[in-house]
Amino acid sequence: MDKILRIDMGAAGGPQMKVEALGGYAGMGGRGMTSAVISKEVPPLCHPLSAENKLVIAPGLLSGSAAAQSGRISVGCKSPLTGGIKESNSGGQASQVLGRLGYAAIILEGKPAKDDLYKIIINQSGVQVLADNSLKGLGNYALMDRIKADHGDKVACISIGPAGEMKMPAASVAFTDMEFRPTRHAGRGGPGAVMGSKGVKVIVLDDAGCKLRPPKDPEKFKEANKRFAQGLKKHAVTGQGLPSFGTNVLTNIINEAGALPTNNFTSGRFSGAAKISGETYAELEKSRGGNPTHGCHRGCVIQCSGIFNDKNGNYLTKQPEYETVWAHGSNCGIDDPDVIAQIDRLEDDLGLDTIEMGATIGVAMEAGLAKFGDSEAAIRLVKEVGQGTPLGRILGSGAEITGKVFGVVRVPTVKGQAMPAYDPRAVQGIGVTYATSPMGADHTAGYAVTANVLGVGGSVNPLSAEGQIELSRNLQIATAAIDATGYCLFIAFAILDQPDTFQDMLDVIGAFIGQELTAAGVTELGKKILSFERDFNARAGFTSKQDRLPGYFKEEALPPHNVVFKVADQDLDQVFNW
Amino acid sequence: MDKILRIDMGAAGGPQMKVEALGGYAGMGGRGMTSAVISKEVPPLCHPLSAENKLVIAPGLLSGSAAAQSGRISVGCKSPLTGGIKESNSGGQASQVLGRLGYAAIILEGKPAKDDLYKIIINQSGVQVLADNSLKGLGNYALMDRIKADHGDKVACISIGPAGEMKMPAASVAFTDMEFRPTRHAGRGGPGAVMGSKGVKVIVLDDAGCKLRPPKDPEKFKEANKRFAQGLKKHAVTGQGLPSFGTNVLTNIINEAGALPTNNFTSGRFSGAAKISGETYAELEKSRGGNPTHGCHRGCVIQCSGIFNDKNGNYLTKQPEYETVWAHGSNCGIDDPDVIAQIDRLEDDLGLDTIEMGATIGVAMEAGLAKFGDSEAAIRLVKEVGQGTPLGRILGSGAEITGKVFGVVRVPTVKGQAMPAYDPRAVQGIGVTYATSPMGADHTAGYAVTANVLGVGGSVNPLSAEGQIELSRNLQIATAAIDATGYCLFIAFAILDQPDTFQDMLDVIGAFIGQELTAAGVTELGKKILSFERDFNARAGFTSKQDRLPGYFKEEALPPHNVVFKVADQDLDQVFNW
Repeated sequence: MDKILRIDMGAAGGPQMKVEALGGYAGMGGRGMTSAVISKEVPPLCHPLSAENKLVIAPGLLSGSAAAQSGRISVGCKSPLTGGIKESNSGGQASQVLGRLGYAAIILEGKPAKDDLYKIIINQSGVQVLADNSLKGLGNYALMDRIKADHGDKVACISIGPAGEMKMPAASVAFTDMEFRPTRHAGRGGPGAVMGSKGVKVIVLDDAGCKLRPPKDPEKFKEANKRFAQGLKKHAVTGQGLPSFGTNVLTNIINEAGALPTNNFTSGRFSGAAKISGETYAELEKSRGGNPTHGCHRGCVIQCSGIFNDKNGNYLTKQPEYETVWAHGSNCGIDDPDVIAQIDRLEDDLGLDTIEMGATIGVAMEAGLAKFGDSEAAIRLVKEVGQGTPLGRILGSGAEITGKVFGVVRVPTVKGQAMPAYDPRAVQGIGVTYATSPMGADHTAGYAVTANVLGVGGSVNPLSAEGQIELSRNLQIATAAIDATGYCLFIAFAILDQPDTFQDMLDVIGAFIGQELTAAGVTELGKKILSFERDFNARAGFTSKQDRLPGYFKEEALPPHNVVFKVADQDLDQVFNW
Repeated sequence: MDKILRIDMGAAGGPQMKVEALGGYAGMGGRGMTSAVISKEVPPLCHPLSAENKLVIAPGLLSGSAAAQSGRISVGCKSPLTGGIKESNSGGQASQVLGRLGYAAIILEGKPAKDDLYKIIINQSGVQVLADNSLKGLGNYALMDRIKADHGDKVACISIGPAGEMKMPAASVAFTDMEFRPTRHAGRGGPGAVMGSKGVKVIVLDDAGCKLRPPKDPEKFKEANKRFAQGLKKHAVTGQGLPSFGTNVLTNIINEAGALPTNNFTSGRFSGAAKISGETYAELEKSRGGNPTHGCHRGCVIQCSGIFNDKNGNYLTKQPEYETVWAHGSNCGIDDPDVIAQIDRLEDDLGLDTIEMGATIGVAMEAGLAKFGDSEAAIRLVKEVGQGTPLGRILGSGAEITGKVFGVVRVPTVKGQAMPAYDPRAVQGIGVTYATSPMGADHTAGYAVTANVLGVGGSVNPLSAEGQIELSRNLQIATAAIDATGYCLFIAFAILDQPDTFQDMLDVIGAFIGQELTAAGVTELGKKILSFERDFNARAGFTSKQDRLPGYFKEEALPPHNVVFKVADQDLDQVFNW
């Protein structure tokens, strides 16, 4: 990972590539790399779909090595959804493969003059950029069939579906999993639209002949990595909850906490929660020959993913994530696990962010386009997005635009991005993260559900304003750093609760880079990344006024706790005063 | 005009009204009143369609008096289009009638719990607020037929069409003219959507039994008013150009200047300009029994409006304004005056801002929804808006949303509001106004076309950056003040060029209020109003970064002068440093 691949898609005569040394970006990985490049190179006031925007794809610092759980990849751009900086993070195979190929980043620049669609092939021998308009309009699944026919299924792919081609603000970038299925997505903030605006349909990564990236201190690395993996196995969340039921272990927990947004954030309890819980899904998966315990990429210890088969026992989609189950389940009043799985498949195929889409359909239901609980309508609406009808275009633009177009006031967004699966009134710490993260409403940016609900990393009353600022601040800093390493964020459960596992993580990274890493060093890195992001947003015109939840969260009490969001504006403004 | 009428549309048990003294708002009229109330009373971060927003309707300081040309009315709110403060200004009969009824403002507050639609009747005996759901869905013309049947045609009406009921960000508030037709509109920024969100379909104003508002010094007032009217008659623009050809006298002039935005701002010259010029329209109107010289309200000296009949000699619409002719003409590549008039009628009926809609259809044409020049498609698209189809909803949301939904980069908006009929590259002074006005892109906010093109109020090279900041600043200050008086902005031509006429205006106002008014006093008033507006916007999260034109105006040279927008960002930031 000592080089950067830049491809100018708008060069005269066709795409031009160059491979550069890391230069000033040395030491940056994942979100550190994407946010540094976007902040430094993209004019903050540019149109997100213009030639001036860039799409940066960066494996984590440890990706491509033998480090357990280090397969996350970051996609950065100026977001078509928020207008601010965006890092969207995904699992799948690409990060490890790109790391082994030696690229610390792929940067797509410029914009093709014509509307040709391109395939980029990267392997040990170099890079090819080929126009291939026969790929136009293909869903991610059909696209992978085509790629498999040409390149086999040992490669890893980064691609967009029809939504990205149509440059929809809810479009994701898809990454193939271990079965060469396009099930992992950098969904949030519309990076798929930026990839579409660059005219790139798919990037095929072939690491045949490449080796694992070697650590500077192999012995220390091996030992620390082993201890670290054991630490993950030992923690109740990463060792039991997530492997058994996936992220959807949360449906019952968050519903019990009264924080499961239901019918477009009108209640924190959903009567149908048990029918769509992780426990129910795991049983279904087992009974149909699927698998509730599976990794999304090689090197995964936690195994929080799974395989979901349909009623006939045929593969339908990966085990839907908790946020997807919430988005298309309780948020739309739907309690049918098969319907949710069908929509998950559809959205993976079209290349859409399931969180944004579920929130959007909730808003559309509030606008009267369908009734809450109407499964058929929900499926129909997602299909419309793929067809690119005017209604589909609206929905594919996300919850905020859908609310504007249909005159809806209750639209759960911050900075134009839809809130995920935790009501900020019943998990006030996550409300602070939603409000203040440079990314817009984003649970992963500072997952205060830990101390607010799960009792991980301490305990902070979720219904009170007290302690939430500090909680969110510390988590946002830590998360920015973790997102730079390639580590899956789920390691947080173990490192927050187990000081030894935290030290093991520091030792793994230290041994890999050949330089001792301290907790202070992690904090420093996180602050540096957040500073890049905050600086970009400020230059894009964001102020503290955009660090706010929509007004109705302060006015409408959420059942069953009948609580409003209580954190004061002036306190929100202290989150980044460190 | 010593009282304010407040109606809380969301009061328990139904709308509650109260009549208050002016209090702290004494001395404020028109835009001064609306911007003071919005700035003081509306939470800047509220949702524009929420109960917290207010709709303020305020006649000018002189409205209802015998002052010539004083019939303008201001409508203020937090804009659903821009998210900032909005004052949208209209002619028609209402201002004079409301002034004579003694109301300095009507303030609609709150939001009905149900979706009942209301009619408000205001006359000498008081105010009635009546639910009348039989009015739902009526176009403004059919609505006026209904009102006429109940109230005769001597009343004045303020109403919304279907677009306002659907809460579309491009929805206007309509005002009846002297013939009781709903042809005058507070169009910009979506005030019709806010009126719709308050559940108010129409306000009927009946000044039977009311007298002209008396000046403090009747003799001085009468004399000054007479001289002032003579001054208007004397100036070439207000005495000849506007009466003969209306505002559309500008099509040939602006086309000649190479500043007539054509085909979504890709050229400043339109080959079909002569076919849709004011000269052509005047001939058509005369030949069909219409009238090119007509006032929009009683007391108008300039008579820039007119009556447009169809091919059979039947009334179709008022003489389309220049900005409407541009919007649906050159901007969409259409050169058929009957098509433009037909769309003008449609939009008056639906209650839509013609500027926003023309710019929006230009963006839709760039997105490939229709070809530039396709008249039938343009008419069909406007009809879709009225039908509230998903496509119609998109278009009714304005150019910015339409661009986002269809992935278009070249979208001519500032602060979410579409640019009007003057390309900022060929009239750089108006570009400064577009960029910096608190209203979003708005030509009336500081009409630098005067010195840039018309040679009125001096001469500043339109293609150079030099002198534009000062020009726009002075015009924005003067305009804010004029918009508070009720005076039609067109008096600016005469008062800028004729010092005597300017003094006559000061004398009219001074004699009316019984207090000498100086040029410095006018400037002070204008600065005060702009400060209210800028302060609101700052609290709503606007920064200097929103005081910018879209990037492509700095990059794409506009034919025929092949010029880009040259005013530097740091200079734009000096506009309000007075």
